[in-house]
Amino acid sequence: MRKDSIQTAVVGVSGYAGLELARLLLRHPALRGRAPVFLGRDGVGRDAESVSLTEMHPQLADNNGSSGLRVEPFSWELLKERGVDLLFLATPHEQSRSWVPEALARGLRVVDLSGAWRLRQPENRAIYGFHDADAALADRIQTRSVYGLPELHRDCIRKAQLVANPGCYATSIILALKPLLAAGWVDLDRGIVCDAKSGVSGAGKAPTATTHFMYAADNLSAYAVFGHRHLGEMLEQLNLEESQIIFTPHLLPIPRGILSTTYVTFRETREAAEVDGCLREFYASSPMVRVFGHGKAEHGKSSTQLPQIQYSVRTNYCDIGFRLAKDGRRCIVVSCLDNLLKGAAGQAVENMNLMCGWDEAEGLA
Amino acid sequence: MRKDSIQTAVVGVSGYAGLELARLLLRHPALRGRAPVFLGRDGVGRDAESVSLTEMHPQLADNNGSSGLRVEPFSWELLKERGVDLLFLATPHEQSRSWVPEALARGLRVVDLSGAWRLRQPENRAIYGFHDADAALADRIQTRSVYGLPELHRDCIRKAQLVANPGCYATSIILALKPLLAAGWVDLDRGIVCDAKSGVSGAGKAPTATTHFMYAADNLSAYAVFGHRHLGEMLEQLNLEESQIIFTPHLLPIPRGILSTTYVTFRETREAAEVDGCLREFYASSPMVRVFGHGKAEHGKSSTQLPQIQYSVRTNYCDIGFRLAKDGRRCIVVSCLDNLLKGAAGQAVENMNLMCGWDEAEGLA
Amino acid sequence: MRKDSIQTAVVGVSGYAGLELARLLLRHPALRGRAPVFLGRDGVGRDAESVSLTEMHPQLADNNGSSGLRVEPFSWELLKERGVDLLFLATPHEQSRSWVPEALARGLRVVDLSGAWRLRQPENRAIYGFHDADAALADRIQTRSVYGLPELHRDCIRKAQLVANPGCYATSIILALKPLLAAGWVDLDRGIVCDAKSGVSGAGKAPTATTHFMYAADNLSAYAVFGHRHLGEMLEQLNLEESQIIFTPHLLPIPRGILSTTYVTFRETREAAEVDGCLREFYASSPMVRVFGHGKAEHGKSSTQLPQIQYSVRTNYCDIGFRLAKDGRRCIVVSCLDNLLKGAAGQAVENMNLMCGWDEAEGLA
Amino acid sequence: MRKDSIQTAVVGVSGYAGLELARLLLRHPALRGRAPVFLGRDGVGRDAESVSLTEMHPQLADNNGSSGLRVEPFSWELLKERGVDLLFLATPHEQSRSWVPEALARGLRVVDLSGAWRLRQPENRAIYGFHDADAALADRIQTRSVYGLPELHRDCIRKAQLVANPGCYATSIILALKPLLAAGWVDLDRGIVCDAKSGVSGAGKAPTATTHFMYAADNLSAYAVFGHRHLGEMLEQLNLEESQIIFTPHLLPIPRGILSTTYVTFRETREAAEVDGCLREFYASSPMVRVFGHGKAEHGKSSTQLPQIQYSVRTNYCDIGFRLAKDGRRCIVVSCLDNLLKGAAGQAVENMNLMCGWDEAEGLA
Repeated sequence: MRKDSIQTAVVGVSGYAGLELARLLLRHPALRGRAPVFLGRDGVGRDAESVSLTEMHPQLADNNGSSGLRVEPFSWELLKERGVDLLFLATPHEQSRSWVPEALARGLRVVDLSGAWRLRQPENRAIYGFHDADAALADRIQTRSVYGLPELHRDCIRKAQLVANPGCYATSIILALKPLLAAGWVDLDRGIVCDAKSGVSGAGKAPTATTHFMYAADNLSAYAVFGHRHLGEMLEQLNLEESQIIFTPHLLPIPRGILSTTYVTFRETREAAEVDGCLREFYASSPMVRVFGHGKAEHGKSSTQLPQIQYSVRTNYCDIGFRLAKDGRRCIVVSCLDNLLKGAAGQAVENMNLMCGWDEAEGLA
Repeated sequence: MRKDSIQTAVVGVSGYAGLELARLLLRHPALRGRAPVFLGRDGVGRDAESVSLTEMHPQLADNNGSSGLRVEPFSWELLKERGVDLLFLATPHEQSRSWVPEALARGLRVVDLSGAWRLRQPENRAIYGFHDADAALADRIQTRSVYGLPELHRDCIRKAQLVANPGCYATSIILALKPLLAAGWVDLDRGIVCDAKSGVSGAGKAPTATTHFMYAADNLSAYAVFGHRHLGEMLEQLNLEESQIIFTPHLLPIPRGILSTTYVTFRETREAAEVDGCLREFYASSPMVRVFGHGKAEHGKSSTQLPQIQYSVRTNYCDIGFRLAKDGRRCIVVSCLDNLLKGAAGQAVENMNLMCGWDEAEGLA
Repeated sequence: MRKDSIQTAVVGVSGYAGLELARLLLRHPALRGRAPVFLGRDGVGRDAESVSLTEMHPQLADNNGSSGLRVEPFSWELLKERGVDLLFLATPHEQSRSWVPEALARGLRVVDLSGAWRLRQPENRAIYGFHDADAALADRIQTRSVYGLPELHRDCIRKAQLVANPGCYATSIILALKPLLAAGWVDLDRGIVCDAKSGVSGAGKAPTATTHFMYAADNLSAYAVFGHRHLGEMLEQLNLEESQIIFTPHLLPIPRGILSTTYVTFRETREAAEVDGCLREFYASSPMVRVFGHGKAEHGKSSTQLPQIQYSVRTNYCDIGFRLAKDGRRCIVVSCLDNLLKGAAGQAVENMNLMCGWDEAEGLA
Repeated sequence: MRKDSIQTAVVGVSGYAGLELARLLLRHPALRGRAPVFLGRDGVGRDAESVSLTEMHPQLADNNGSSGLRVEPFSWELLKERGVDLLFLATPHEQSRSWVPEALARGLRVVDLSGAWRLRQPENRAIYGFHDADAALADRIQTRSVYGLPELHRDCIRKAQLVANPGCYATSIILALKPLLAAGWVDLDRGIVCDAKSGVSGAGKAPTATTHFMYAADNLSAYAVFGHRHLGEMLEQLNLEESQIIFTPHLLPIPRGILSTTYVTFRETREAAEVDGCLREFYASSPMVRVFGHGKAEHGKSSTQLPQIQYSVRTNYCDIGFRLAKDGRRCIVVSCLDNLLKGAAGQAVENMNLMCGWDEAEGLA
């Protein structure tokens, strides 16, 4: 066992992000010999009995000695007994909102995969409709919560007790836009359009009318138009007004992966090489972002050098590419990631790595 | 047999649009008892032998007495012998460009499903790189060609000898935008963004790297960014400059269907009811456009009333819906259609109906 | 309106078979001008209010004047008021079992799409666990119920008051086997193996763990091994013992369609032409079965002449083809159908056609 | 670098198995610091120029320092220069047949992923139609070739110079049947039925009519009935006559994964626990086979404990489960694996591990 190893715990392993998190933690080099404590499989603390992890997820069987592992009912005592240092919450928003104050009070460090602690502005948070038992306490916690996007907040994450793991859509769009906005190139008066498409796992494991195979397969639909919860994260992280950005999510008939097509207009004419340089420089020290080759758009030429979902799915990379119009002003940025990895469990592991002083990409290659 | 019946012929029945066209014509009420002449199955006139239609397409077997039908090698004599009145060309662009002059000279009426005769402006047509044997003749024909979008050119189509059936993407986007542009509501300085997604049949039947199941399935990719051939149709039909509209096609992992998400900004604040009225009024006499219910966007509300691919696929409808931002200025129009029906074969039948004086929607319900 | 027209009603239009039934009945030539009465959308009679048919199923909008139609709460009075002659039940098994006695008592003719009345033998029915209010009455009704497979029971269906529409798997397998069994060719001691694969719509519209897109997509699973409810239908209709046939269903990642691969051994050596003749003769008068071309299997030759799901899906045909081993004894029969059409709603319409003295295939081309 | 490390080379990295092999070798613990030599990307030795590995496969970019790697034209000199010890051939059958004699003569060890050297019996090999330049030499090599299924030939593989990596279908079926046949339980007079289903990657990367998305999606088809090339491997490895086993492959609309449903009849009545024991004992020392829990079939009970494609896909496991009929005689074995891993590249790495004296499962967890 490595000297700098820690004891982790995962609440909510039954969901898709929870399963990916289990997979990543079970093979993480720094955690070898210290399997995570799995508990609270339903994510809301009502399990009465433990179940076998591999009965729940047969794909994990015999994988890294996981066979004997069980998922226990949630209890604070169990976390204490097992000496848990870092708690991953793959739980419903409201449940995370309710559990985090207690977890912090008990001295646990927390990476929360829900949307509970991502938003500073009450007006952005309103859409979740949280009912905080102690509003003042919740407010204090909120101000100490760090938005867990390593590319933007690496240093704060290292020291954080509570990391709010970003939304999947938000990650893909913030990473696409941040370098260009930071450079001051984007004409905000022209408005930014983010047309995003996500696989079905983004909708969660609960069987619903819209996650039914017959609804999703052979179909495409826009949803939550002008009203998706991830918009608030984009506004806060990119310092934008709601009038400056439109975000439209669509439900793709695929299991996982997000592709976001983002349209911006530059204040001044740019060369493709400049845009390329801007992106590469911004992400020079970011191991989990891959900038794709540039090129002015040519008629009829197939765009093999733009990111596609198939290139990033089942990796922890966010792939970013772009095309610039002949006028040098209009630019289309295409960003792709796996919503369960860079958009959820993988990014949660990145955050753990930073919190523990390990290499940002450890266990994620 | 109906007195007003005609004799049709289809060149290129081997492709996806050709198959749908065969299906529609074989059950068209006005053509009962007069099966189309099928010929030139490869669409380029090099077939040496006839083949059984139902051996080529087993799904057509025993369907409306189609069992005995054969697909003959292409020849002008055959068209004459069989007394063909109306010729459908489901052929490659270059082949249509080459055959149409002869067909018109022989007095045939033509509905051309290729892109050969859709574009008035040489600069828009340049992307096809046609090599006309007789450039002056081609130019004369081009000026007489009617763009076969019934919702815009119903009257001209009725009298046309040559109808250029519109592109599938172009149909979905022109129908989404025309009413709002015609009303003069759209602020063109802000730019229009058309983010379109199409099923794989739009890429044609030739096996290629990008139509391979392994490339398309579980994937999404943008292609032909800033350079798709259908853009010219949008510019001409909507009277727009290239700087005023961006069109980005994406390849969806589904067999058929297009969903276009179009973003416009209005010059002045509008109410949703106004937008709804504008669309309904424009399409009041158009049987193949369905305007979906309106509604200001509400946070978190699922947008069941927006068109989805599943609602229009395997129908000849173009479905149009919209959402208006709270500011009353930014509007998202979602339009859906089946790229092989309203986007190809179905619209070709609409055009035939108009050319023959029949009901526009006959045989398309 | 045709003189021989009748008034139909559909209970349970919200489901997949219900939607297909609505589509077929709305365009059925004999029902023109007499739209079905739609009622009891949830199939269990607990709806409190009527809803718009096209709001429930946007794909039906403006299709054959269906726009104004509503789905009413279920009531016997409504059926009487509207003068309903023929009642389609697309309802849960238990509900059909409970409603049919009343419906028959009121003089209605019934086509029941559930499994409630298909099985003569109590031991085959036991798997459904029905709780009949009046067991003796239920038994009497059961003996009068006709199994609605036109290819086998055409004459009885014509006169039936109650037709039990067959199961989708059962239809595909009974039609594949019946000719060979009727000819006395099959060596029953060797056992028959039926390996069947069905699209997800066969599992119904209720969102469950196994109909979730994430479960079904990119997956294949066997289920109900040695214990599927449709086995009883095969035993009764084919006069087989349970020891003589194995039926294994699998869940395919496609919306609709069934392919059954059935393995039999002949008592004596046969030629492919004999098998072909046996199938063709048996189905000579059956408009909805298509027998595919024969051929001894050849090494490496692609089997384009075997049925595939894509050929029969969205048609009412059952396609049947076969391959014979070089030994002339082992034979593989492949049968395909659309589980929502020939396997449900389409076959229900066939049964209506027979009950009304219309052409068996009317409205199904 | 590990002391026991070797230098590997991969011919044919452009294909699906080649890509998976690259992925596995680039992160294999024993090969750290010694990236494979990639050459002959087209698999037939006609490449004129080298290409960037990550341009060919963007998903490999920045993954384990692979960015600078190139795929060189094939040449024997290059293999020598780079000091290659072990050569993986992911090449067409005929090409492997032609190159292996030279490779062996040059002292290379070879793992051949093609079907070139799998079959001992000329009559089983005939289906490939090889044209050996030196037939006597080819025969000598054939007798020294080891069939690379570790579960059966572990010891021979360790010492082999040439390992013929098994076919994907063959692996799934041989592993399902071998324990029961070895125990002498199976009544061969009753015949064995193997109904297998595979994802599209099994058909290779060349775009063809049957790998087109429009052909494979929403479809299922049987192919090569009574004539698939993998049958010979089953006959030889299981010591069966052609009359004793039927193998029917089907093309599934998924990217990867095989599920084989195998039907056997036991000579004598067995208990499920006996069957379970038989399988577990046989695979007790095999790290890459997972035996799933047993259970007599119960009516209506969902079979969650049978293998499904989703459990083994993207792992190197072959999952095996079964159901026994109430008669204790008829048994259905379900086996699943990923055709590109345990069915190709993963098993090739297993073979390398054995040939090098490493742990059989190294680099495959």
